[in-house]
Amino acid sequence: MAPPYLDFWFDFASTYSYPAVMRIAALALREAVAVNFRPFLLGPIFKMQGWNTSPFNLFPAKARNMWRDLERTCAELGLAFQRPEPFPQSSVLAARVALVGLGEGWGEDFCRAVFNAEFAQGRRIDETETIGAILSGLSVDTAAVLAAAQGTAIKDKLRAQTAEAQALDIFGAPSFRTADGELFWGNDRLETALAWAKRAGQSAA
Amino acid sequence: MAPPYLDFWFDFASTYSYPAVMRIAALALREAVAVNFRPFLLGPIFKMQGWNTSPFNLFPAKARNMWRDLERTCAELGLAFQRPEPFPQSSVLAARVALVGLGEGWGEDFCRAVFNAEFAQGRRIDETETIGAILSGLSVDTAAVLAAAQGTAIKDKLRAQTAEAQALDIFGAPSFRTADGELFWGNDRLETALAWAKRAGQSAA
Repeated sequence: MAPPYLDFWFDFASTYSYPAVMRIAALALREAVAVNFRPFLLGPIFKMQGWNTSPFNLFPAKARNMWRDLERTCAELGLAFQRPEPFPQSSVLAARVALVGLGEGWGEDFCRAVFNAEFAQGRRIDETETIGAILSGLSVDTAAVLAAAQGTAIKDKLRAQTAEAQALDIFGAPSFRTADGELFWGNDRLETALAWAKRAGQSAA
Repeated sequence: MAPPYLDFWFDFASTYSYPAVMRIAALALREAVAVNFRPFLLGPIFKMQGWNTSPFNLFPAKARNMWRDLERTCAELGLAFQRPEPFPQSSVLAARVALVGLGEGWGEDFCRAVFNAEFAQGRRIDETETIGAILSGLSVDTAAVLAAAQGTAIKDKLRAQTAEAQALDIFGAPSFRTADGELFWGNDRLETALAWAKRAGQSAA
């Protein structure tokens, strides 16, 4: 019997991944769906579409709408919000550290803390100082974790995870994928994706 | 006292405008918000971003997700769905006829009938035959309406409406704009936009 689960694909620089990462644990618990946090890098996927930065930086009207919409969305959810400067920030270090943490049990807390630092507190997540401070707050061995995050195994893992996202047709974040291969894109689809995952788990049972 | 209202901007070729146009009348009635149907052309706005077709045709992974997501969305709403071929179809004729009809009281029924023909029945909305058949079904003088739709006054009106959309920072469809200038993009934001319009109308009262 397959327990219902949902793969949660996100990039630490992705704006709508902020409300998604903050909401997913409580909603998944309510639906009794297990969630796999899958950090990846959108940059290489954007590059293959000919974009060298966030599409929001390429399409100003769309960007203005997105920032205002994200502000409204966060206000409705009671989430603090500050627009990150600069945008986007490199998410490579955060993603590597998250992969270490997801193997050690503190990964999800780390992910929420990084998004909070970036979108609620306006801190630079591309700086080792910020990531180090977050790790200290989680009471893990900061030096050992940062060393592991820069090791070959984790670098390769993040590369493989990003290649997997692309192979799964993922083109944006957050994205959600169920056991039966259904793909959902965007914070707006979190509830629908969880409901689908639950049904997929039940019919596989 | 300003009664609450919402401007509803859409393009007849726009995929997510289909569920929006089918849902808006009943939801607006429930919220006691008046809706202004504002057909416009996305083509000229896309062209200024360097796109010569729908962005969905330029970004295949995004398109695959959109078609599947639209199919799921329509299934959930109980709306019939067929993928239009070709996509996108020119929406110029439909938009011009809609402008005639919105001035004569049968415009909203016409808009729903066009979206139904395109997305539920797989008919070509860029063909005069389809538009003529829809007009006949609405018991209006088809020849007179088609003549008016190709007249200078209506052509200019559609051009002006498209220029207004662009001036309002509209970059996609459906879009919703409230009396206090708040802009919402996408079928997913219809409920939020109506709630905002209601509050805006109350605070202006």
